[in-house]
Amino acid sequence: VSATKLAQLGEFGFLARFLPRLPRGRGVLIGAGDDCALVQMDSRRVLVTTDALVEDVHFEKQWMSPYQLGRKAYLVSASDIAAMGGRPRFAVVSAGVPPDYPSRDLDALHRGLAAAARETGAQLVGGNLSRADALFLSVALVGEAPAQPIERRGAKPGDLLFVTGRLGEAALGLRQLRRDPGARGAAVRRFREPVPRLRAGAVLAKNHIASAMIDVSDGLFQDLGHLCRASGVGARIELSSLPRSAQVRAASETLALAGGEDYELLCAVPPRRLARLQRLRPTMGCPITRIGEVTPLADGVRVVDARGASVALRQGGFDHFAARRR
Amino acid sequence: VSATKLAQLGEFGFLARFLPRLPRGRGVLIGAGDDCALVQMDSRRVLVTTDALVEDVHFEKQWMSPYQLGRKAYLVSASDIAAMGGRPRFAVVSAGVPPDYPSRDLDALHRGLAAAARETGAQLVGGNLSRADALFLSVALVGEAPAQPIERRGAKPGDLLFVTGRLGEAALGLRQLRRDPGARGAAVRRFREPVPRLRAGAVLAKNHIASAMIDVSDGLFQDLGHLCRASGVGARIELSSLPRSAQVRAASETLALAGGEDYELLCAVPPRRLARLQRLRPTMGCPITRIGEVTPLADGVRVVDARGASVALRQGGFDHFAARRR
Repeated sequence: VSATKLAQLGEFGFLARFLPRLPRGRGVLIGAGDDCALVQMDSRRVLVTTDALVEDVHFEKQWMSPYQLGRKAYLVSASDIAAMGGRPRFAVVSAGVPPDYPSRDLDALHRGLAAAARETGAQLVGGNLSRADALFLSVALVGEAPAQPIERRGAKPGDLLFVTGRLGEAALGLRQLRRDPGARGAAVRRFREPVPRLRAGAVLAKNHIASAMIDVSDGLFQDLGHLCRASGVGARIELSSLPRSAQVRAASETLALAGGEDYELLCAVPPRRLARLQRLRPTMGCPITRIGEVTPLADGVRVVDARGASVALRQGGFDHFAARRR
Repeated sequence: VSATKLAQLGEFGFLARFLPRLPRGRGVLIGAGDDCALVQMDSRRVLVTTDALVEDVHFEKQWMSPYQLGRKAYLVSASDIAAMGGRPRFAVVSAGVPPDYPSRDLDALHRGLAAAARETGAQLVGGNLSRADALFLSVALVGEAPAQPIERRGAKPGDLLFVTGRLGEAALGLRQLRRDPGARGAAVRRFREPVPRLRAGAVLAKNHIASAMIDVSDGLFQDLGHLCRASGVGARIELSSLPRSAQVRAASETLALAGGEDYELLCAVPPRRLARLQRLRPTMGCPITRIGEVTPLADGVRVVDARGASVALRQGGFDHFAARRR
């Protein structure tokens, strides 16, 4: 029997193979395969997305408090709304919880979810609780779409590539937590608490600055690949231009490229929009850094060093089916 | 340390203790604690709900095919939309899947979800795939609300209680599957494939027939309790009136009361609406049976036999935190 296993195919293999089959029927403006679905309900265009955190896959219990975990479960979903330029409005959570889980911790999970939602202008409006051997939290979010949501497709050769915030911090935090569950510091804090770039996403969408956008959750290189495939283009990234803390830079060359869990926005900006981007930069609530440019499809996706030489990457990013088990 | 564990508190204990704390903020018309949340997005009122199926809690792998499991994961969420009288429109799924899960089976899960959505007029618009040791499927559904969605609260003493379809069938099927994973027959089919009562729910809401409604997912007695608590009333159920197949009746007196997974609708109907109910009965797509009446709060929730004597219940319904592990 040579049945393909998910571990061989990987999450992206699966998503690429199966999700595009979803027909786009009535009211579906953007279906599976982007950060969110965009649907039409009467005159209102609505974003819908879901994401999950699973114990021993995305986190270990000793790495963060239940309150922090609740916050993170919400924030990673909100990042998908940011990647379309939308506003999160209503969240529901489906939680799987072991029977010996203290109800005090469940309360903290729930307060974390509700607080993080509130801080981004959204509300936790309902949920479902199941028993499960390993803790999981699936959050689904309904958001308001901007007039022109930014998809993954739409980048053109000659567009410039920008990324918000800094890369590699969360991956460094994860590495530190794996070595020492009691680790502290900025990187660990960032792993525990992503910062969805809602304001930047909204500014980029509302002002028609970005031609394509994705949130960087699986590592820059991986997500850049998704954006390029969706847009039918290639890209060249300048390694030296990646925004990184000194700590990340010192830790490893590849953390910023392949680390995962950045939850920053990667977008393509046509040259004619650069002046507008420059003008609106102070309103985005975070830095935004030019890291490369969009190239023709035939050029592929390349990372170059300061001298323009291609950098080989051993691992493209985080695919937790392809990844070794911890 | 005397921390309360979920296993002691139970799902409903938790939900009762914590969920009502959710503030109802901007745009939230019905918050946590009903079958769905009802939210306002511009002029459109939208229902949002989520439910999950977890391996070894809600099912064992050998009990149903991946295609059937995908269908069921969607249908149990659709039942929550039916319970408010709404129309399901857009679904997203968050799946947790073991790494050795065959991609062929994942494809079948996905086809099952998408087909069941399509059959109820909805669409599967996106999803998220995580690694997990035990399979889980969390489905979130966005639906159109009727002009007056039916809540759990609203029942008044003197209202009559009705239930759609038949009770206890799925619970009998579950019992059969536990004895023999290869079991067949109507009860097993019903366990595998719930039938959300979308048409009946819509008719009951649109025509203002029901004063309160809930879907029966945890056993009639349990869900009747939820409806009564939300409405601040008691109830009297006539055991002999419960709609049951001969097979269910023969199997056990309590299957129809406490079995769970019926996914029928339980509603309260004011006497002045009975003529309307009678007239519209043929349009509901399923039988609807009078099973008792709403009483004052002080009378509590009682089940009586044919002579009017109270029937004692050992177990109130299915609470999978309180339940023994299988």
